[in-house]
Amino acid sequence: MEYRKIKDEDDDHDVASDLESLKGKPHTVASSNIALVGAGSNERTNWKRKGVVTCALTILTSSQAILIVWSKRAGKYEYSVTTANFLVETLKCALSLLALTRIWKNEGVTDDNRLSTTYDEVKVFPIPAALYLFKNLLQYYIFAYVDAPGYQILKNLNIISTGVLYRIILKKKLSEIQWAGFILLCCGCTTAQLNSNSDRVLQTSLPGWIMAIVMALLSGFAGVYTEAIIKKRPSRNINVQNFWLYVFGMAFNAVAIVIQDFDAVANKGFFHGYSFITVLMILNHALSGIAVSMVMKYADNIVKVYSTSVAMLLTAVVSVFLFNFHLSLAFFLGSTVVSVSVYLHSAGKLR
Amino acid sequence: MEYRKIKDEDDDHDVASDLESLKGKPHTVASSNIALVGAGSNERTNWKRKGVVTCALTILTSSQAILIVWSKRAGKYEYSVTTANFLVETLKCALSLLALTRIWKNEGVTDDNRLSTTYDEVKVFPIPAALYLFKNLLQYYIFAYVDAPGYQILKNLNIISTGVLYRIILKKKLSEIQWAGFILLCCGCTTAQLNSNSDRVLQTSLPGWIMAIVMALLSGFAGVYTEAIIKKRPSRNINVQNFWLYVFGMAFNAVAIVIQDFDAVANKGFFHGYSFITVLMILNHALSGIAVSMVMKYADNIVKVYSTSVAMLLTAVVSVFLFNFHLSLAFFLGSTVVSVSVYLHSAGKLR
Repeated sequence: MEYRKIKDEDDDHDVASDLESLKGKPHTVASSNIALVGAGSNERTNWKRKGVVTCALTILTSSQAILIVWSKRAGKYEYSVTTANFLVETLKCALSLLALTRIWKNEGVTDDNRLSTTYDEVKVFPIPAALYLFKNLLQYYIFAYVDAPGYQILKNLNIISTGVLYRIILKKKLSEIQWAGFILLCCGCTTAQLNSNSDRVLQTSLPGWIMAIVMALLSGFAGVYTEAIIKKRPSRNINVQNFWLYVFGMAFNAVAIVIQDFDAVANKGFFHGYSFITVLMILNHALSGIAVSMVMKYADNIVKVYSTSVAMLLTAVVSVFLFNFHLSLAFFLGSTVVSVSVYLHSAGKLR
Repeated sequence: MEYRKIKDEDDDHDVASDLESLKGKPHTVASSNIALVGAGSNERTNWKRKGVVTCALTILTSSQAILIVWSKRAGKYEYSVTTANFLVETLKCALSLLALTRIWKNEGVTDDNRLSTTYDEVKVFPIPAALYLFKNLLQYYIFAYVDAPGYQILKNLNIISTGVLYRIILKKKLSEIQWAGFILLCCGCTTAQLNSNSDRVLQTSLPGWIMAIVMALLSGFAGVYTEAIIKKRPSRNINVQNFWLYVFGMAFNAVAIVIQDFDAVANKGFFHGYSFITVLMILNHALSGIAVSMVMKYADNIVKVYSTSVAMLLTAVVSVFLFNFHLSLAFFLGSTVVSVSVYLHSAGKLR
């Protein structure tokens, strides 16, 4: 009803002539004019954008996991993971700058797309990077209490922590049906990953549980915080916001290199153990990182969690063909539960 | 709104005096008067009845499974299962008659509670009994293709077949959310039963799958058909309907004894291998059978499926204490999915 009302108030001819009149005008004016165009076409553009970035994230995340399996087939990690993470951040930074230079060329430099920033805008940007750094460091200690397959299971707690923090920090409401869907998403993902060793996770000691929960909260916080930062200034160009996020990402990953891999890098060099697949993985991580930012800008953390979960299932299906993976009954059951959950998320939309 | 309207039209005093006036009147009139009493109090009575029979079914089914585990701890079945089934039908028949004699004593014999029947009423009663007989016979052949744990998994197909046949034959609609819940119920029950051997069920051959699906359809048909028969004459006393159902049950189980266990019964006697627990099991089966009929009368097959599924989970929890059962991660995940499914069934009610 609201939507219809807004659309009726707009004179269709006016919108058309507005768009016509943009031609030939300096692009600085154009971009601000586009923001004023009728809510109807805005809504459509938003949906299109949301769809494109969600699909991009799903595909990139799927291929990401497949690349990891691929690189592991050739053996274990030969390179320092922290240097790869640093390069991912650097590449994302470079790609954001590249996108910005094209935008500057087309639209000119505006308040929304200029790179220079204020302390007020930039002061919160280090927070998600710091949260991720803590989480990654904690990851080294949790393996004293939980084995790798158990960790994969416990990682699904992220889904619940993201939902809860999304509600508390961003104050966005999910309907009861959507909450039901979210609980199912967590159960379905976990079910799909079940194997004969999974039950060992129930024997996790108290410190293991606490670390798993803290890690889930850190990762949920980082996601929700990034969304809050990006959405705080809706008109600000996403590439500028990304640039600053990634600058701090580079800085914090440099710290991680020093803490974790100083000796290896000093003795064997920064690029020791890199292969073609390592380069592909870095490329893929960078692109999926940018896709995550886009999803945060044009959709939200919930959509992000759903698309990465679906990507996890797609990965397994693709792996059947690529690596002769065996799909378990648990996988089929989990996938069905996740599919129902996706349906419930859209069926349960608050009106 | 509808409900409120009907309630407003009824004069509360009239209802009260109607009920008062029943005292001393011949009971033939009383029972037909009760049917005319305001929709409001009827609705409340129906809900109460529905709740009581659903709880009874859940508790009886839970203890039923526990008794089976108990009897198996003492070894395998020593007795002929068909003779036990025959006794269950006989006991149900006797209990229905007992209930009827009490009703006749209190209310007198009416059109609705008299035992004599017409060909038109009774002609469909053998159908569910015949369907169950076919299903039980088929069960002997499916084990050539599927092992016992696999059969437990495949039995969950009943849930889906019941839902589909309920929709097609009884023409009752479930909302989309309720369908989602029903699919989840099937997934959740199966997940809860997963163990390290469950994956073998995926290797079931085509004849095995076909038999499993046919068995699910037979059992679904039997359930839905029983509901159709019982609900066709809503004012007919449930004990009379049960009596006739069970008479045919006895007859068909007598056939089953002859087909399957003739030698054992002829050589070792009808009651060979019976123990105290066998008697308890027969008693329990008879009572749960009656509870199922009551659920069919006052609720429906969907409620039946939900309460037996919840009973399955309760059984496992109780077994932890009784038999030192070990609850798997899969059980926790499955139980959560079933709980969400129960919520969705009530949240998704069609208005």
